[in-house]
Amino acid sequence: MVQLKNDLLLRALRKEKTERPPVWMMRQAGRYLPDYIKLRDKYDFFTRVQTPELAAEITIQPVDQVGVDAAIIFSDILVIPQAMGLEVQLIESKGPFLPKTITSQKDINALITDHVDENLKYVMDALALTKKELSGRVPLIGFAGAPWTILCYMIEGKGSKTWDKAKQFAYTEPQSAHSLLQKITDITIKYLKAQVKAGADTVQVFDSWAGSLSPADFKVYAQPYLLQIADSLKNDAPVILFPKGTWYALKELSGSSASGIGLDWCVSPQQARELTSNKITLQGNFDPAKLLAPIPQIKQWVKEMIDGFGSQNYIANLGHGITPNVPVDHAKAFVEAVKEYKPPSGSPL
Amino acid sequence: MVQLKNDLLLRALRKEKTERPPVWMMRQAGRYLPDYIKLRDKYDFFTRVQTPELAAEITIQPVDQVGVDAAIIFSDILVIPQAMGLEVQLIESKGPFLPKTITSQKDINALITDHVDENLKYVMDALALTKKELSGRVPLIGFAGAPWTILCYMIEGKGSKTWDKAKQFAYTEPQSAHSLLQKITDITIKYLKAQVKAGADTVQVFDSWAGSLSPADFKVYAQPYLLQIADSLKNDAPVILFPKGTWYALKELSGSSASGIGLDWCVSPQQARELTSNKITLQGNFDPAKLLAPIPQIKQWVKEMIDGFGSQNYIANLGHGITPNVPVDHAKAFVEAVKEYKPPSGSPL
Repeated sequence: MVQLKNDLLLRALRKEKTERPPVWMMRQAGRYLPDYIKLRDKYDFFTRVQTPELAAEITIQPVDQVGVDAAIIFSDILVIPQAMGLEVQLIESKGPFLPKTITSQKDINALITDHVDENLKYVMDALALTKKELSGRVPLIGFAGAPWTILCYMIEGKGSKTWDKAKQFAYTEPQSAHSLLQKITDITIKYLKAQVKAGADTVQVFDSWAGSLSPADFKVYAQPYLLQIADSLKNDAPVILFPKGTWYALKELSGSSASGIGLDWCVSPQQARELTSNKITLQGNFDPAKLLAPIPQIKQWVKEMIDGFGSQNYIANLGHGITPNVPVDHAKAFVEAVKEYKPPSGSPL
Repeated sequence: MVQLKNDLLLRALRKEKTERPPVWMMRQAGRYLPDYIKLRDKYDFFTRVQTPELAAEITIQPVDQVGVDAAIIFSDILVIPQAMGLEVQLIESKGPFLPKTITSQKDINALITDHVDENLKYVMDALALTKKELSGRVPLIGFAGAPWTILCYMIEGKGSKTWDKAKQFAYTEPQSAHSLLQKITDITIKYLKAQVKAGADTVQVFDSWAGSLSPADFKVYAQPYLLQIADSLKNDAPVILFPKGTWYALKELSGSSASGIGLDWCVSPQQARELTSNKITLQGNFDPAKLLAPIPQIKQWVKEMIDGFGSQNYIANLGHGITPNVPVDHAKAFVEAVKEYKPPSGSPL
């Protein structure tokens, strides 16, 4: 196994001392990069995801071009519903569409839950190839969607502002909802373990729609499954949980088996540290819209963000995926600002 | 002036004792009501808003049919951009569209800020007529959009998931953004004062997109303008502020001139009371998706919600507008559950 030349991310997740915070950006391999757009114009989404050579190339682009401290495998959270037997279409600029959705316990019973590493072999192949091509330059991040978020798509069949149908299912058929969440959890655990075996140094669990739930419902429909995943992976690789919009859960999640918590920008760095009693590594939480501001302003804000979190037990990132309209220079400025970070004089490293 | 027969809402806003919490629902005059749909099929949106007889009829429908403790005037927050000279189109099920958006200081300079009570005379006429027709049955609520939310629409021209353009404008041209926010604030204050004069017993300010901002940015781009409005109205009528998604601002807003704060469901009743030190009347925060659950379950959840907030200094409401797919019986069950509320035995009223 090749020794990592830059292991800042892994050290931050282990709460070890780092010279500076590691930095990566959610959706860093994506539509703001001209070289990504060239491949997108040539190959459709699932061809890009399912062809290891293409996925590896896309995954490594931001390492080469933007200078991030980690690569995250180019894939999609909806490969899990696909592997469970549901058709998923991904139309550019329209988002995902599942022609057949889950409407009953019978539909849930019909879902496939075994052979995940065979069905998603192309992800493992992409990870292995990327790992090889990175040759230790930076760590490789694997990922999956969280059970609540996957349930949302399986029931609604597409994006939603309110996730009404998913919630209606959960509130009127809680037993079925829990059986579905458990099925997704079981397959996700197997999937993430396979990703680690294939080369992922750490894994992130994206609960993009957790914030649609009240604090009480998050504890019923999302948190238990996030904790199961974190517990099951704890001897495999560090886990980063990213339940977007759930500031209210920070205290409890900071005592979980996870190594890191991702944050959106709707909590201040100081509040997040307070709510987690500095017990866990935090990741985030720059508003991607701020990458549209002039570069000197971006750099100033990044400095303020790191001052807020402190430079230790911290991973600099955005609070959500980078948007297609961000100039590459601005993304680079974000990364550079983290690399140039100097703590306020007099403060400990 | 007719004496109010049911002044529960106003007493709750004045922090006076109430036998039970008052209850109303955001968007209670709307698409879940078959009688509303009949009028919608006959008259387009702005005809309904601009014809006092229609607006009054729609406003009173939920008082008659669902039994709420307040009427809220049927109108739209985008009448303000309209009155300022921007065209607003409202296409059913597609949302608002402004063909010409604000892109520069020049555009801002060209906005109309006077004659608001003449330009929006139809709102005042609708309020006066509704007030007369209600003949004191329940209080009448006026409303406006908050400056940040109105700016979002003026710059984007339509709804957005991220409000990127609005934020880009704010972050790159802060001086222009503030001049726009101040103009909207000034006209909104005049507009709300005119609404009170025309018959509104209280006014609510909807900051629907405040939650797109970080805590630091909320303090710069939203909070100061909300406070200006609350301060300016304090001798006119009680003001309810509803900055959706800004749990982090609760502490500061609880010390403002406002009489009430509206809450979405992403904060628990107990947390909200704690963050506001029980200093201000709270309103909310039932997840509208929960109205899709079976009626006995709705009633149980309502009871738990009121137990959480306590029955005093509290206005039962949803955490966001009622959705079109809610059965009328379920909306009624929500209202009935509040009316039937009995505090846990042994606890003070």
